Amino acid sequence: MRKFKAADYKAEHFDWKVDGKVATLTLNRPERKNPLTFDSYGELRDLFNNLCYATDVKAVVITGSGGNFCSGGDVHEIIGPLTKMEMPELLEFTRMTGDAVKAMRMCPQPIIAAIDGICAGAGTMLASASDIRLGTAKSKVAFLFVRVGLAGADMGACTLLPRLIGLSRAAELLYTGRAMGGEEAERWGFYNSLYSSEEVLDAATKLAHSLADGPTFGHAMTKKMLWQEWNQGLGECIEAEAQAQAICMQTNDFERAYVAFAAKQSPKFEGN
Amino acid sequence: MRKFKAADYKAEHFDWKVDGKVATLTLNRPERKNPLTFDSYGELRDLFNNLCYATDVKAVVITGSGGNFCSGGDVHEIIGPLTKMEMPELLEFTRMTGDAVKAMRMCPQPIIAAIDGICAGAGTMLASASDIRLGTAKSKVAFLFVRVGLAGADMGACTLLPRLIGLSRAAELLYTGRAMGGEEAERWGFYNSLYSSEEVLDAATKLAHSLADGPTFGHAMTKKMLWQEWNQGLGECIEAEAQAQAICMQTNDFERAYVAFAAKQSPKFEGN
Amino acid sequence: MRKFKAADYKAEHFDWKVDGKVATLTLNRPERKNPLTFDSYGELRDLFNNLCYATDVKAVVITGSGGNFCSGGDVHEIIGPLTKMEMPELLEFTRMTGDAVKAMRMCPQPIIAAIDGICAGAGTMLASASDIRLGTAKSKVAFLFVRVGLAGADMGACTLLPRLIGLSRAAELLYTGRAMGGEEAERWGFYNSLYSSEEVLDAATKLAHSLADGPTFGHAMTKKMLWQEWNQGLGECIEAEAQAQAICMQTNDFERAYVAFAAKQSPKFEGN
Repeated sequence: MRKFKAADYKAEHFDWKVDGKVATLTLNRPERKNPLTFDSYGELRDLFNNLCYATDVKAVVITGSGGNFCSGGDVHEIIGPLTKMEMPELLEFTRMTGDAVKAMRMCPQPIIAAIDGICAGAGTMLASASDIRLGTAKSKVAFLFVRVGLAGADMGACTLLPRLIGLSRAAELLYTGRAMGGEEAERWGFYNSLYSSEEVLDAATKLAHSLADGPTFGHAMTKKMLWQEWNQGLGECIEAEAQAQAICMQTNDFERAYVAFAAKQSPKFEGN
Repeated sequence: MRKFKAADYKAEHFDWKVDGKVATLTLNRPERKNPLTFDSYGELRDLFNNLCYATDVKAVVITGSGGNFCSGGDVHEIIGPLTKMEMPELLEFTRMTGDAVKAMRMCPQPIIAAIDGICAGAGTMLASASDIRLGTAKSKVAFLFVRVGLAGADMGACTLLPRLIGLSRAAELLYTGRAMGGEEAERWGFYNSLYSSEEVLDAATKLAHSLADGPTFGHAMTKKMLWQEWNQGLGECIEAEAQAQAICMQTNDFERAYVAFAAKQSPKFEGN
Repeated sequence: MRKFKAADYKAEHFDWKVDGKVATLTLNRPERKNPLTFDSYGELRDLFNNLCYATDVKAVVITGSGGNFCSGGDVHEIIGPLTKMEMPELLEFTRMTGDAVKAMRMCPQPIIAAIDGICAGAGTMLASASDIRLGTAKSKVAFLFVRVGLAGADMGACTLLPRLIGLSRAAELLYTGRAMGGEEAERWGFYNSLYSSEEVLDAATKLAHSLADGPTFGHAMTKKMLWQEWNQGLGECIEAEAQAQAICMQTNDFERAYVAFAAKQSPKFEGN
């Protein structure tokens, strides 16, 4: 079957480094607060799609360089050209950005976002598409699609944001485009926890390594079930998990945990 | 196509005032804390349905007079008669109240509730059906359907409230009928923010004008997508937004924003 | 039609006491922090299924003895044997545990969990499957499925937990298996409120009696609708509630409430 070696990947439009079982993706145009371009969107989509076939990397950290996460779609390189396009091209673009989110949710690796400074526009959706978000008090998260004359419905915002922070707060942020502060983001459940600017990337990296050293077959199943159960009935979700967990009970990691426990040791998981 | 001129509408069972692009609906029977009647329910349903065809009003504020929001269905004018009805009439009534909520979610204008004092019974569902809720610390929000011997399932409460404040807190409020205090309501995400009694209506009005001056075609699409994505899978939601946002990218407001940005000016949106 | 007299039930694998219209189920192996076994899972499933046919009990409290709620599936009595099983038996087991959750959500009685000390593994799902959760500051809630090498997807965790505390916090707990502290659990909405260890069971019992003295036909309908609306569209939920509430309007409890109100008395509900 098709395999993708994540450690050998050479990124063109952002930084990509693999350390053991953890990859770190760094948006790296700090002089512009790490905006996205047509090319970087496309590479994000393709890379996360490829990660479905990677076995060397077991968790991903996504962050930005220079004290900011991501300023969203570049005004000159993206918004300008979009105002000139016809519908088929527009739809090609919005599907590309949406497909980047889909790919982030479809790959088996948990994704941890480390967010400082500006997190705006499409950047908020890269954050929202991650599994876990660590932030800083001084960061600002602005779903500012309305500020450029558009709907708040972008890349899945109207389904992801209400599930992260509740419908009332999500609606306000999507209608107004105002920035959510870091402490507010933690209080509302967008951020899992707050760190200083110096510590946030280290904390995300440490958490990623911890997950990558865990039962990664199980993690991938958790991620898959969170998607599968998005709009199933309660009874169907429970049956889906009965099947999913029975599969996981046939992995060696399940037996490794039991053997380690009986020997009063810590289990060493191998992801199979 | 059918048009409805909101500014010309003469309300019979509540106050209705239009100022520029913002309408303010005031429940106005302050001596009884603004209860609803068969007639006012029906007029609410019909008015919000008509707002689907209005182009003059771009945001709606809903509030109550005399320091209270709404005490719910009037005991003498509604509950008494309901205890005498046969099933076809009962269903006609519950569908009318439910249809009022549907109409509030279906009209393209964002609705902002300004809530002080008592917000009880059906009043809580007018609040929950709004897009954004501003409240006061001294307000009390009581889903008191159980207090009159009924289920907490009324006008969509079992789907709306869990999405606003989470399933655990929603279940408690719906089973017990107890009042949620204003600070609790803010902490739990029911209220977007708290104001003094003197300021809450002004704040709602100011926010409504701000939204009405924004890209209202986009706002209407945001509102539509929040409904559309209520029970779609994650992948289907993302595709739905790819289409919705591509449509919005063909509006003039999108280009206006870009031109204004390039000229270092603030965009002036026109909703088309 | 089939009837089940809850007051006569003799439990084998936990304690079961009925006081008036409230039953209290106590996991009672305090020396091991109340773990579950194959037998106790099965009895939980069967008992809650039987409660569908009980009319004597109108609310259930679930708790643990000796200062802990439940330590989850017993390592020696459950996890060891599972590591030796083939798929058909594994699926029989995961379906049994999932069916216990389904039965808790399907029975008409609201279930209130009183949680102190350790609440871990399958214990977290008994807590999550309850309608209302009262906890203590020193309790610890750990979805520790990953710690035994499995997925976080167990007994409906991937659908129930995000609806209780939001997707972001749920994902963190399910991926890491870390313990959520009592204050955190209250802040995040998992617990409805916090009590001291001495008070938590009394508070749950008092609340259960209060619900059992309420309009229990209505409560059962609320519980049913929360399930029915799990993955329906907004419009369909509102229609479902129009029908459900119209049914409730034909109960005597609805008239009792009105008559009591008119006489300035408190209604005495009878659940019909």
